[in-house]
Amino acid sequence: MGQQDVNRQWILVERPSGDNYEQVLQWREEPVPTPGDGQILIRTIYLSLDPSNRIWMEKPSYLPVIPLGSVMWGVILGEVTESRHPKFKAGDVVTGLGTWADWMVSDGKGFDIVPRLPGVPLLAFTSVLGMTGATAYFGLYEIGQPKEGETVVVSAAAGAVGTLVGQFAKLRGCRAVGICGSDEKADWLVREMGFDAAVNYKAEDFRAQLKAACPKGVDVYFENVGGWITEAVYSLLNQRARIPLCGLISQYNTAEPQPGPRNMDVLLVRRCRMEGFIVLDFLPRMGEMAREVGPWIADGRLKWKVDLDEGLENAVKSLRKLFSGGNMGKLAVRVGPEPAGR
Amino acid sequence: MGQQDVNRQWILVERPSGDNYEQVLQWREEPVPTPGDGQILIRTIYLSLDPSNRIWMEKPSYLPVIPLGSVMWGVILGEVTESRHPKFKAGDVVTGLGTWADWMVSDGKGFDIVPRLPGVPLLAFTSVLGMTGATAYFGLYEIGQPKEGETVVVSAAAGAVGTLVGQFAKLRGCRAVGICGSDEKADWLVREMGFDAAVNYKAEDFRAQLKAACPKGVDVYFENVGGWITEAVYSLLNQRARIPLCGLISQYNTAEPQPGPRNMDVLLVRRCRMEGFIVLDFLPRMGEMAREVGPWIADGRLKWKVDLDEGLENAVKSLRKLFSGGNMGKLAVRVGPEPAGR
Repeated sequence: MGQQDVNRQWILVERPSGDNYEQVLQWREEPVPTPGDGQILIRTIYLSLDPSNRIWMEKPSYLPVIPLGSVMWGVILGEVTESRHPKFKAGDVVTGLGTWADWMVSDGKGFDIVPRLPGVPLLAFTSVLGMTGATAYFGLYEIGQPKEGETVVVSAAAGAVGTLVGQFAKLRGCRAVGICGSDEKADWLVREMGFDAAVNYKAEDFRAQLKAACPKGVDVYFENVGGWITEAVYSLLNQRARIPLCGLISQYNTAEPQPGPRNMDVLLVRRCRMEGFIVLDFLPRMGEMAREVGPWIADGRLKWKVDLDEGLENAVKSLRKLFSGGNMGKLAVRVGPEPAGR
Repeated sequence: MGQQDVNRQWILVERPSGDNYEQVLQWREEPVPTPGDGQILIRTIYLSLDPSNRIWMEKPSYLPVIPLGSVMWGVILGEVTESRHPKFKAGDVVTGLGTWADWMVSDGKGFDIVPRLPGVPLLAFTSVLGMTGATAYFGLYEIGQPKEGETVVVSAAAGAVGTLVGQFAKLRGCRAVGICGSDEKADWLVREMGFDAAVNYKAEDFRAQLKAACPKGVDVYFENVGGWITEAVYSLLNQRARIPLCGLISQYNTAEPQPGPRNMDVLLVRRCRMEGFIVLDFLPRMGEMAREVGPWIADGRLKWKVDLDEGLENAVKSLRKLFSGGNMGKLAVRVGPEPAGR
């Protein structure tokens, strides 16, 4: 894998414009760095690819923008191979906000030790027990506050986060309804993922289908898309409905920002609460999630899937795939081998 | 006043369309009703006119729509003249959701006894200590949760609710910034109402002025208008800003619903919370408000004003005035005299 004696990296050299990823990310090889006092050396095993990567490259957000000339940022899962930090020891598997590189030195901030959970593979920590899972878990349970018997609707339901939101809703005794972009996906959500109903937003009678799928209205709308799909869901919101604002995918690829929903008065008269959240805020509580979700993974009650690409050298191609809809489920890149015994 | 022996009333006979208020409300005179067991007879003193009246006439909202053939609904302040209800006695002054009539019989639900507060006139309970005040008070303090030193922006700032929101913000040690529709109003908000700054949204450099008025960003945006004004405020929101959603006036008078703000992604990346609220939910806590706000009225720290029209027979004209912007501050109608000794 080339991880032994060289540190291969992707450097961000320009702000992206459209999808010119090959132009703005440059390959560089350097010696493996050496950790100083209070630092750890991490060998990357898996690199997570997420829609937020594009935002970090382009502009300040909840994180500062990635400085030009820096190694590209990404959430990684890796092995501590050398530690001069009291919290970590060699052999620990850690996850956190790292870089697109074979190796990195860190002061440990933002990194957590991945626990050993019976029946749970390491790869789960890049997805269902990583940021993707945490987005669904904390966004739904903490921001959405679903109660047994309520109806939860999630848009972009066939995406990595959406499939988990629907399943987490079911595991709390809710009715789970997905909105997705094809009849095949809708069938798959109901048949394979256990959703109670799923609706293709491209269907001519989408609104009528959505209404029929939510006979008792909508109590939680997990918002991933924005725009006119949101409008359709708003019209079905119940009193005191909650809207975790997770993404607005309909707005990302358009040159001009799109208008918001025209029926925001619904939020007023039905006393609804919409709240934006950033999964990084929940990093300190990843262990809590792992304790609840781990057993669901081990006994198969929760279905999850990683679309795993091979090799750091292919990461830019993987990024392109992420934004062209070429992947199914969570997308990650294998950078190096898992440690023996995990 | 004609209140002694006849019950003059306005009956809703049709759903309104545009501003045809004279057509949909019909005058009727009936005998004064007699309260049964567990009921009270209320003599109306003041009738409050509020934008929500129009909604109640037209369609179901947080309240069912007013049935055709019923007496028009309105918030009233009145005197109990006869009581067969254990909670009330003759001579009590009460306020609650009543009707456009000289007299009404009620089971007391939704009515509260107006306390005697030193230095506070009864009229205050139709406005600053009534629904208008409660909208500002609970909307700002409960939903907005302003903290000392934070910046509070309110739109429709020169309106009955807006002037109170700004003053309540100041009384909690916040910076108060108003958005209004003329330079005169802006001057008045700063000079008379004690706002730190006020901006005319019709100014060509409105966005720049608003930004300059909020040098530390916006922590609470008390939303009364919607549309492009909202967009300008969103761009200044701080992390974890709160948006009490009180009204969307920009949408009420248009035939087609207007689009929402195009920059809702701000709510996501800055983890903002927007929450609709209905002042009726806070009715049980009106006493709590009166205890805090009463002294501010008595000592003049809080400025308030009622535009008082005379006579139930003119209530439909007053309603027209409410929607044509003909009133300054809170609008009410005097239906009968205040009881001696209050």
